[in-house]
Amino acid sequence: MSFIDRFYTTTGTEIPPFPKGLVWLVGAGAGDPGLITMHGMFAISRADVVIYDALVNSKLLELCNPAAEKIYAGKRGGKPSVTQQDISHILIELAKKGNRIVRLKGGDPFVFGRGGDEALALARDQIPIRITPGISAGIGGLAYAGIPLTYRETNQSVTFMTGHDQFGDAPQALNWELLAKGSQVLVIYMAIKNLDKIVKCLLTYGRKREEPIAVISNATLEEQRFLESTLGKVVEDVKTYEMKAPSIICIGWNVHLHRIITPAINSLLKNPKGIHYSSSS
Amino acid sequence: MSFIDRFYTTTGTEIPPFPKGLVWLVGAGAGDPGLITMHGMFAISRADVVIYDALVNSKLLELCNPAAEKIYAGKRGGKPSVTQQDISHILIELAKKGNRIVRLKGGDPFVFGRGGDEALALARDQIPIRITPGISAGIGGLAYAGIPLTYRETNQSVTFMTGHDQFGDAPQALNWELLAKGSQVLVIYMAIKNLDKIVKCLLTYGRKREEPIAVISNATLEEQRFLESTLGKVVEDVKTYEMKAPSIICIGWNVHLHRIITPAINSLLKNPKGIHYSSSS
Repeated sequence: MSFIDRFYTTTGTEIPPFPKGLVWLVGAGAGDPGLITMHGMFAISRADVVIYDALVNSKLLELCNPAAEKIYAGKRGGKPSVTQQDISHILIELAKKGNRIVRLKGGDPFVFGRGGDEALALARDQIPIRITPGISAGIGGLAYAGIPLTYRETNQSVTFMTGHDQFGDAPQALNWELLAKGSQVLVIYMAIKNLDKIVKCLLTYGRKREEPIAVISNATLEEQRFLESTLGKVVEDVKTYEMKAPSIICIGWNVHLHRIITPAINSLLKNPKGIHYSSSS
Repeated sequence: MSFIDRFYTTTGTEIPPFPKGLVWLVGAGAGDPGLITMHGMFAISRADVVIYDALVNSKLLELCNPAAEKIYAGKRGGKPSVTQQDISHILIELAKKGNRIVRLKGGDPFVFGRGGDEALALARDQIPIRITPGISAGIGGLAYAGIPLTYRETNQSVTFMTGHDQFGDAPQALNWELLAKGSQVLVIYMAIKNLDKIVKCLLTYGRKREEPIAVISNATLEEQRFLESTLGKVVEDVKTYEMKAPSIICIGWNVHLHRIITPAINSLLKNPKGIHYSSSS
């Protein structure tokens, strides 16, 4: 029995079926390989083919069956090496040949991950699917940085949004004015490229220059870097401290809580995760 | 070597330190025990004491060291059997005695889970902490129900909110008007009790009666039940179909995608998860 199967026998949980021809969409989590779920590990270990993205931690591929085929479907140098249509087509063809397939995506497949497109394409072609969620950077990245996503004294809501649309711009379909005015906390994925535009927009619609903002790059990894700034200074600070994609951004007063929580996270670690910058008062 | 340690050796990942006196906040995930993360399992297996909530799947406690003490800190019959202050106090006392403690919380500790309060209380008392996120119902529950949280053609943002504040009412601090008007998709935790008020409020602020809404109770568990309705009919439907807490609710046009995705999820399962109701046209 593999070490992975032991989880199911120990907890008395049914071993998930993984028949031939199934495409299993699995969220790999935000970066730290230890964020993979039990079902996700099981799926990876049993698959005939694993198709993985650029943001998937390659350590997780060590869980594959040695005979499994591993296919990289990420982007290189900003250009998609494989289009979304290509990926869906490959998944469908491999499934029809009777392979057990894992589609391994960074973070969560359904949170700004194009997993919806893949699930719909497969379902429309009568391919059976299964979906196992993952720890998204918007939740896991903030937790590793000591920021509670919600906290009663700061916010009873949080809005997740993406910082660029399919053309690379800040999304036009979003009602930025209402979101800026109504959302207590904003968590923005892929925001670095359009940060200047996004910050200007938020300030125009009434967010305060002194409002705290956290920028976390390579969230949850050893290379994690953390910047605390304010809406008024963050564009300059991101340049000064050379914060780069992939980054997750959090705007709101809950950000300040990391000042209390992070020292408690770091107190017993020999190598506290990442480098901390703060340019706020 | 325990089966859990094998993950770290197989993937070449450093085994996390778990020194005496550390309180490790762990998200147990939305319900399905297979949603526990690798780090979460590791923490549970090594702890001297595990303090767990009502929504934690008890199967996960089978991962504990047989010598570990297990303490229930959930609510019974709607009344807190242990107050938040009590829990923080117990954690601090146990940590000061040199125990290795896991605080196991349903979903994610920092998503409407009071984990922020606990982390702050511990940090203020100089207790070292570690935080491992979990799969929150707002992400995992929707995925199991075949609903992509984001999908380019329906939404580039999603707002998570809680359906009741600490007094059991719909939260007053939220700007319901701006959130109703500005958020493309709303995911509401603990919304059943105040559903009538919440729906009235959303309709008053311009959401359409025909907008789709999904209600998922016991998300990700065998007992999962799913209702698709509309804002105009959901209050009646929730009574008719006896949907009860714990439930997660999603409002938005992405809900309709489950009609395509769910059949593909169910096609190969002998026992498709849960019961489906639909009262929408």
